[in-house]
Amino acid sequence: MSDPIVLSDDPEVLEYPFNRLDGLITPNGRFYVRNHFAVPEIDSDSWRLKVEGAVDKPLELTLDDIKSMPTRTLTSTLECAGNNRIFLTPPVKGVKWELGGASTAAWTGISLADLLNLAGVQATAAEVILEGADCGEVKEEPKPPGPIHFARSLPIAKAMEKDVLLIYQMNGEQLSAKHGFPLRAIVAGWYAMASVKWLSRIIVSETSFGGYFQTTDYAFWQRQDGHPVRVPISRMLVKAEIAYPLPNQTVERNCRLTINGAAWAGERLVAKVEISQDGGASWSPAKLVGEPVRYAWQLWEYAWLTPSAPGKITLLARATDETGETQPLEHDPDRENYMFNFCLPVRLEVR
Amino acid sequence: MSDPIVLSDDPEVLEYPFNRLDGLITPNGRFYVRNHFAVPEIDSDSWRLKVEGAVDKPLELTLDDIKSMPTRTLTSTLECAGNNRIFLTPPVKGVKWELGGASTAAWTGISLADLLNLAGVQATAAEVILEGADCGEVKEEPKPPGPIHFARSLPIAKAMEKDVLLIYQMNGEQLSAKHGFPLRAIVAGWYAMASVKWLSRIIVSETSFGGYFQTTDYAFWQRQDGHPVRVPISRMLVKAEIAYPLPNQTVERNCRLTINGAAWAGERLVAKVEISQDGGASWSPAKLVGEPVRYAWQLWEYAWLTPSAPGKITLLARATDETGETQPLEHDPDRENYMFNFCLPVRLEVR
Repeated sequence: MSDPIVLSDDPEVLEYPFNRLDGLITPNGRFYVRNHFAVPEIDSDSWRLKVEGAVDKPLELTLDDIKSMPTRTLTSTLECAGNNRIFLTPPVKGVKWELGGASTAAWTGISLADLLNLAGVQATAAEVILEGADCGEVKEEPKPPGPIHFARSLPIAKAMEKDVLLIYQMNGEQLSAKHGFPLRAIVAGWYAMASVKWLSRIIVSETSFGGYFQTTDYAFWQRQDGHPVRVPISRMLVKAEIAYPLPNQTVERNCRLTINGAAWAGERLVAKVEISQDGGASWSPAKLVGEPVRYAWQLWEYAWLTPSAPGKITLLARATDETGETQPLEHDPDRENYMFNFCLPVRLEVR
Repeated sequence: MSDPIVLSDDPEVLEYPFNRLDGLITPNGRFYVRNHFAVPEIDSDSWRLKVEGAVDKPLELTLDDIKSMPTRTLTSTLECAGNNRIFLTPPVKGVKWELGGASTAAWTGISLADLLNLAGVQATAAEVILEGADCGEVKEEPKPPGPIHFARSLPIAKAMEKDVLLIYQMNGEQLSAKHGFPLRAIVAGWYAMASVKWLSRIIVSETSFGGYFQTTDYAFWQRQDGHPVRVPISRMLVKAEIAYPLPNQTVERNCRLTINGAAWAGERLVAKVEISQDGGASWSPAKLVGEPVRYAWQLWEYAWLTPSAPGKITLLARATDETGETQPLEHDPDRENYMFNFCLPVRLEVR
């Protein structure tokens, strides 16, 4: 297992080798990448961030302007909304993420809310659109005309939460080109399509944004009054992943092993993690490791005595969040090719 | 040319033979049909219309209840949002309508507003969802899960206009099964996907409806702040169609002919119709025939002296509405496979 695993070159898609999990923070060089277009070449001297739309005072800021604002650092897990897609049968379209479409970093920058307050958000504001400098053609139907920028919106209430950041440092280092230099959003607790990279424009909008990455891609069908309605993906769902043992590994019988992994629940804390060795019929609690950090994954481990007889065994891990929401055993088909939070089987050979 | 022209059997799609245009009203037997699923079998005795959602008093009404309410009759043109699609090169997906994805009838029923006032619309209402009893699977991506009902929403302001009707009579006859028996909406001035047939449920909603026929189908990309955003199709655009001569017809040289047709502009009146014989370089006014009827097409004619020399000639008709909006010569590619209102060429042979 090299680090990271290349899933696509153009655009660049890199998977974090999740079996390398050894702490809260993912090193920058292994942090997963999901780009949609080529990395834009940005000269930070000429780069400006525009803030416009339903604001009292439109802004055009340099990187130094932003760095001179009050700093905020937050440790947060990012996860691609398609993480774990390879576990689905029959297969669905999209990047075939295994376990590593998720990583955790300490992000340093400013609160988006501080910037919005500087511009003066008008009472009619409904959403805040985050626009990246990355741009290209897309293929999925319904296909928008011509090249488009990556862009996502947040409801105004979410955008004004102090924990939505615009960051220029990742784990204490200058943000790299592939992670969004010079500035990216971190929408802690939401799937990472909301954490727009290479930010160039912030538009305060009076209407609901219907952009491609909001309605066609990174959207799903939700039932409302009996009708499936198209809804943008937002909050991360509760999930546990097993880092060790690896799928298809062979383990010795009657052996003491430590199963370990991470669990996360978006905006919520993880309350418990459990392990099943019988396909979900019975569950045993795992031990949560370290202090809980809101928005960051929770490390956990489980002291396991392997079976006394040789044969096949499947491990499942299941997380429950602080509100009692827990993982299902099956994927909700309404969500199609996104938001996989069913318990992922780790099949092992006992010898 | 038989009447009507069958474009599809399952679901039933019938085109009005537009060259049969001979007055304001299209006879019921020739009125175009665009169904999406099989015609639902409805027993009018057991049928009920439900009104629910953000209302003070949910309703469940019989057909007699509805017929006992104040009656309103309106003459209105309906047009499929894909009408004239066959004229587009290169071809685009969808039913290949020629000129007859449009027809006009006198519709009798009640104002939707009267019904909504009876139920008491709450101040939080944003939209009104009209749900048909017709139901089935759809194929276009992104494909919603399972069978869905045909459903469309109107902004609350539009829904409260007195000219949005729920009708049970079409040209003085009981509404037929294929046209939506026992009750259909007529959203005058909007493309006909809004005029939901076989109405079974009206939901007053506090949010924007993201149903399939609102976001995937019968929607288009509109530019907003530089981003294409997905918008439901709504208002009909200004358009003229030539009923005579027919495309590819041969006409005698030096001959007096009357070119005739209809023009419409949705919620607006048609102010003028013009004819071009030189590809749109010069235009001559046609004569509007009869009194203008808001929401209904405007008949027009043009006394033509055919060219003195044999050869090929292309006629164009162009309508302008009362606000000065006029037809373009080319299709706006942002609208993709819907809302064709470019001037349609009628190519003729002069001999």
